[in-house]
Amino acid sequence: MPEQQIIRLGHQPRIESYASIVGQKEGEGPMGGCFDSVQTDPYFGEKTWEQAESRLQSDTLELALQKGQIRSGELDCIVAGDLINQCTASAFAMRSSEVPYLGVFGACSTMAESLLLAGILTDGGYCHKVAAVTSSHFSTAERQFRFPLSYGGQRPPSAQWTCTASGAVVVSATGNAPRLTGGCIGRIQDLGVTDANNMGTAMAPAAADTILRYLTETGTKPEDYDAIVTGDLGHVGSPLLVDLLLKQGVDIAKVHCDCGAMMFDDKQQDTHAGGSGCGCSGSILCGYFLPKLQKGEFRRILFAATGALLSAMSPQQGESIPGISHLVEISA
Amino acid sequence: MPEQQIIRLGHQPRIESYASIVGQKEGEGPMGGCFDSVQTDPYFGEKTWEQAESRLQSDTLELALQKGQIRSGELDCIVAGDLINQCTASAFAMRSSEVPYLGVFGACSTMAESLLLAGILTDGGYCHKVAAVTSSHFSTAERQFRFPLSYGGQRPPSAQWTCTASGAVVVSATGNAPRLTGGCIGRIQDLGVTDANNMGTAMAPAAADTILRYLTETGTKPEDYDAIVTGDLGHVGSPLLVDLLLKQGVDIAKVHCDCGAMMFDDKQQDTHAGGSGCGCSGSILCGYFLPKLQKGEFRRILFAATGALLSAMSPQQGESIPGISHLVEISA
Repeated sequence: MPEQQIIRLGHQPRIESYASIVGQKEGEGPMGGCFDSVQTDPYFGEKTWEQAESRLQSDTLELALQKGQIRSGELDCIVAGDLINQCTASAFAMRSSEVPYLGVFGACSTMAESLLLAGILTDGGYCHKVAAVTSSHFSTAERQFRFPLSYGGQRPPSAQWTCTASGAVVVSATGNAPRLTGGCIGRIQDLGVTDANNMGTAMAPAAADTILRYLTETGTKPEDYDAIVTGDLGHVGSPLLVDLLLKQGVDIAKVHCDCGAMMFDDKQQDTHAGGSGCGCSGSILCGYFLPKLQKGEFRRILFAATGALLSAMSPQQGESIPGISHLVEISA
Repeated sequence: MPEQQIIRLGHQPRIESYASIVGQKEGEGPMGGCFDSVQTDPYFGEKTWEQAESRLQSDTLELALQKGQIRSGELDCIVAGDLINQCTASAFAMRSSEVPYLGVFGACSTMAESLLLAGILTDGGYCHKVAAVTSSHFSTAERQFRFPLSYGGQRPPSAQWTCTASGAVVVSATGNAPRLTGGCIGRIQDLGVTDANNMGTAMAPAAADTILRYLTETGTKPEDYDAIVTGDLGHVGSPLLVDLLLKQGVDIAKVHCDCGAMMFDDKQQDTHAGGSGCGCSGSILCGYFLPKLQKGEFRRILFAATGALLSAMSPQQGESIPGISHLVEISA
């Protein structure tokens, strides 16, 4: 067992600003009203899906800066990542920013990974202001991980729908806003799931491991939080997470929310097991949970985004799907 | 301009152990004698190139732990990355480790990015011991970024040769070993180079930006260092870096070393502009520079690995190649 299970952010860096932008389908879902902006053009004014995702991500960061009246030049670092090969959605989004840039890869757990690193960089006094940004786009993900869109392949009930969405958070060493109070770096969990259309099942054990370690180490209970938020387990993975933790004597059922399960009306929108993608939990964090903390409706939440660390090639080589879940505690 | 240009590691975390493993061609080059291990089997006992790279990376970390008499369970975190889609070489290498895992993507700058983050995590008291690991494999990179190996495509003189190599460093909050004394997070630089067979030219401006910012902010001069090491500019990018800095009034020619230019005997080994890949600078740092610091032959170096943040698809969409360079200062 590792010596230090959790990350303590003793200086409690602040979430100074945040923003979310989503695509049309996400805007038509039950969460549609909470995002800063819903864009009906899936190309976001660009020529390719990949350029569209970069535009979505850079627009979201720009909006977060604008909302907080922060100049881009005030940022000491941008921590960003996405699902696209070689994380180009993020690199191309940020290349003209002139801000120091750390690329991260945590698949759909990226919002939690980048936010945790932004917290560490500001808490430790290494930076004053750091942005944590992520995105996903339905069409870039489908092209890369599955089939050409025009092929019209059938999706099994356990499949999730990659969200066209982005979230951006600016973390600052000082200020009067929701605080990052702790975190937990995820451990890779791989229980042998090989079905790339069943990510929720592959990722649930990672979320269970991270949440359990955090609760144990902090001596807190599920009822100490207004919400324990996972990212993208969807309707298949969510009950599995609740069951896994119940077997360890921890009942999170009353406070558990999953961004993948929240994003769409699965019956009306034909999205099967729910939403997924780095931008799913990123946009719902920034559109729904951070405003609730800001307004004082929530006092304290755990945000544990989950990621499936596979490539399009790895299942073809007979590999199972490793999952990971990073966690950040956010207090009002 | 960002407020904080550099990262100061006031507690000076130690490099407790390190290891390097390379493939046969790298072992036959001028640096061959400095690596811990040269493996003649390009599959490293596995069935696919991708699994081979994962094995290479996990073996290298295991060797670093073994050399330092460190148990895997003593690690609080592994920071790792590679060039393969969705960074699967690293995720699959580390999935059975049970150690908290942060995936990063900095292309060939990954060794500097992961080492800098390991330094921050230990310097800030967030972790006791952190491993920074990276790898590349000629055959995984060729398959993914270029042509099938059996196609036998001709390589232009400016092309570099992706190294089959891995480096692993264990950073510890305390101890008696080379120290991490500072660092600099790179800014993305894109001067419009579109030729994916000329990465050195694409990356040189990023190295120049990072090195110049570090020297300026610390008030140091090139002659204060025994070596200013770049990763993978090769024979085309290296003179360009020297020129770019000379135009800013900084002459690094006498102390500049480039891992890409050092790895191969380009005339004998037909490697054209030199080596590249995350493992190139990773293995030469661990095989050549860290031992020199350990023995006291070098007092102080700057390690500025460089990365090209493109995908196989981005040049096809008419995109130029963004470069980045992260830097770590290491003292004996």
